[in-house]
Amino acid sequence: MALLGCGTVGGGVLRLLQKNAADFRARVGVPLEVRHVLVRDLEKPRVSECDRALLTTDLSRVLADEAVELVVEVMGGEDFAGTCIQRALASGRSVVTANKALLARRGPELLEEATRRGVGLLFEAAVGGGIPVVRTLRDAFASDEVTEITGILNGTSNYILSKMTAEGAPFDEVLAEAQALGYAEADPSLDIDGHDAAQKLVVLAMLAFGARPPREAMTIEGIRGLDAYDVRMAAHFGFNVKHLAIGRDLGAAIELRAHPALVKKTSVLSNVSGVLNAIRLEGRALGPCLLSGRGAGDMPTAVSVVADVLDVARAIVAGAPGIVTGARALAERPLADPGDRRLRFYVRLSVADQPGVMATIAGAFGREEVSLSQIVQSESEGGAARIVIITHVAKEASVRAALRAIDREGVLVSTTAAVLLRIEES
Amino acid sequence: MALLGCGTVGGGVLRLLQKNAADFRARVGVPLEVRHVLVRDLEKPRVSECDRALLTTDLSRVLADEAVELVVEVMGGEDFAGTCIQRALASGRSVVTANKALLARRGPELLEEATRRGVGLLFEAAVGGGIPVVRTLRDAFASDEVTEITGILNGTSNYILSKMTAEGAPFDEVLAEAQALGYAEADPSLDIDGHDAAQKLVVLAMLAFGARPPREAMTIEGIRGLDAYDVRMAAHFGFNVKHLAIGRDLGAAIELRAHPALVKKTSVLSNVSGVLNAIRLEGRALGPCLLSGRGAGDMPTAVSVVADVLDVARAIVAGAPGIVTGARALAERPLADPGDRRLRFYVRLSVADQPGVMATIAGAFGREEVSLSQIVQSESEGGAARIVIITHVAKEASVRAALRAIDREGVLVSTTAAVLLRIEES
Repeated sequence: MALLGCGTVGGGVLRLLQKNAADFRARVGVPLEVRHVLVRDLEKPRVSECDRALLTTDLSRVLADEAVELVVEVMGGEDFAGTCIQRALASGRSVVTANKALLARRGPELLEEATRRGVGLLFEAAVGGGIPVVRTLRDAFASDEVTEITGILNGTSNYILSKMTAEGAPFDEVLAEAQALGYAEADPSLDIDGHDAAQKLVVLAMLAFGARPPREAMTIEGIRGLDAYDVRMAAHFGFNVKHLAIGRDLGAAIELRAHPALVKKTSVLSNVSGVLNAIRLEGRALGPCLLSGRGAGDMPTAVSVVADVLDVARAIVAGAPGIVTGARALAERPLADPGDRRLRFYVRLSVADQPGVMATIAGAFGREEVSLSQIVQSESEGGAARIVIITHVAKEASVRAALRAIDREGVLVSTTAAVLLRIEES
Repeated sequence: MALLGCGTVGGGVLRLLQKNAADFRARVGVPLEVRHVLVRDLEKPRVSECDRALLTTDLSRVLADEAVELVVEVMGGEDFAGTCIQRALASGRSVVTANKALLARRGPELLEEATRRGVGLLFEAAVGGGIPVVRTLRDAFASDEVTEITGILNGTSNYILSKMTAEGAPFDEVLAEAQALGYAEADPSLDIDGHDAAQKLVVLAMLAFGARPPREAMTIEGIRGLDAYDVRMAAHFGFNVKHLAIGRDLGAAIELRAHPALVKKTSVLSNVSGVLNAIRLEGRALGPCLLSGRGAGDMPTAVSVVADVLDVARAIVAGAPGIVTGARALAERPLADPGDRRLRFYVRLSVADQPGVMATIAGAFGREEVSLSQIVQSESEGGAARIVIITHVAKEASVRAALRAIDREGVLVSTTAAVLLRIEES
């Protein structure tokens, strides 16, 4: 075996392999031996479990060693990691990786290469670090069809939203706190703008729906700038705000989107708090299946990587490394038109507090055949009133058209005075 | 392959095998052929997917067929099913079973036989029908130690409790309704007295802690006769009542118990409603991992059975059927003394409404060093008052001693006038 990368996750992998060496040897039939550790910097300090004699910066040297049958990539990044995995597979080595960004972009190509070479390619740790969702999709759902995926896939966003809900605190304050605690990066955009969740959703859709990464742009909205007022009002109506990644198999097309959404307080997803992640799969025969746990973190990720290592190692010993890949045929699946989605919506408008405004708003929704379920108008503050509306189920395009019409009427206090959040029934 | 039993689950297995035949052939490398279907009654109608020419009542005929490498037991019952599985393993066949009661009693013996013969023994469907907990414990936690299991393992009990909570309805009424809907058996005792959950917990403890079924009696309490008043009062204090199965690895000993418990409303487990099951595993490295889904039902169970069939089939084709069993060494683990458990408790006392009663009660708890966190006394009804107490964390033995002392003081309106429920923090 060769390990590519020896940061905190790689160190965790070495620790687990060492600690469980006797057990793993019994389970696999042969010892799991790490023969090379590829790093960028030979001088940097490493965990004590790392034998410095194994360190190398030369991939060719690693792949020239015929005793290496399995390559474990935990260095991250797309370009060099992609090259390493590609070369490892092409030379007949099985690969375990935790690289979500790479899989979201080049997953199909790498899976096809693994299938062609008859080797294993496993990536449990790439989605929901410590949550066994990849093997669940591959094994538990083997005879079932997944019709729906709903996930809380970004721990940073979930931490921020949980704090905003519990404490009524504003977004910027909670983000700063999350950064201080190390739950959010200095540049948090990958997390809080929804891209991380979207990448994971693309990987899940590949496994669940056999869908290649979509060519079209999918709906990706983050939680940046979410107003504490809307979190409070959501709670008033019985909802928590969660950042969800949603995939649906609609037959001809699929739906893929990642955005904040209102979820009923008494649902399970609504109560997945803090940095925890959760993934709810809906199977045609199996019904709902929810998995929750730590979505990130060095040790949960390392445990998932090592679980994959064991699977591949046993398959290699059995002489059939390819049986663990279990990739299904992938196809281009077009994305359904976002405007066609039929959901309930939360709409908040900041409007000039003057006669006739409510009639204008109600009229605009009426003309688009969006029917309103609940309306709350709060007291005017400095001449502006806040109107919160929960719609009945309506087409997203119709709701957006109504909001454009309202904006044209000039009743909004600013062009950013309309907030639109989707309500997910689950 | 041979199928033992062809009821609703067996029929579902045949349906899934037929529907996915091409896909499975591609994934396994050879077609999955059902060569015999063992039944008790040759004349009974069967699903259309069942070729009647395969029906037999003779196990020896099935095992005499050397082309049978895998036996799938879905008939249930302990004695005959046990004999079949034992004989199948002994003759070198791998086995997939959904038989929880059998595994809870003879699991270690059967696992040892499978290991000795180098064949597979898989039983995903035996615990939490459609929830992939067995493979999660075996694969995802391979390099981790499970320290704690908390499960909602009985769908009937969970359905009844969810209804009692949502509607404030009395136990007997909800039970009758559950029976009418087919969610509870005519004889519901296995479900509502906690035995079903306890059997599943024993199987999970085998996988998670390497513990043989305990020789001592474990704490098993059901929900029969739970008073709607206590469900309402639990809600008043911010809890839902759930039937939980709890296992803990305490080092030298383990803790195993199944009983109703108060769980915080905002916890995930608290919001697992209706017939759904859930299992929360706590791993030393992985942290918490929660799985939820349908705990029973023909199709979820069949999907889990077929997932096992695929695993074993691929391993058989690879020439290493034994690699899927993945049994760890099992040991006798003594049960910890139940009296030593330290928890918070909900206590409800129906007492004579007379001066000095509260002093008596408070005195009894004080002498046992049980400190009280919250007390609510409700208005007297017909001379009896209800006092509800939430304790701070206390030894279970101390709380019980206090209750005995209170009973001896003669302030309770009857000997069954004290209700004790455990509070689980999760």
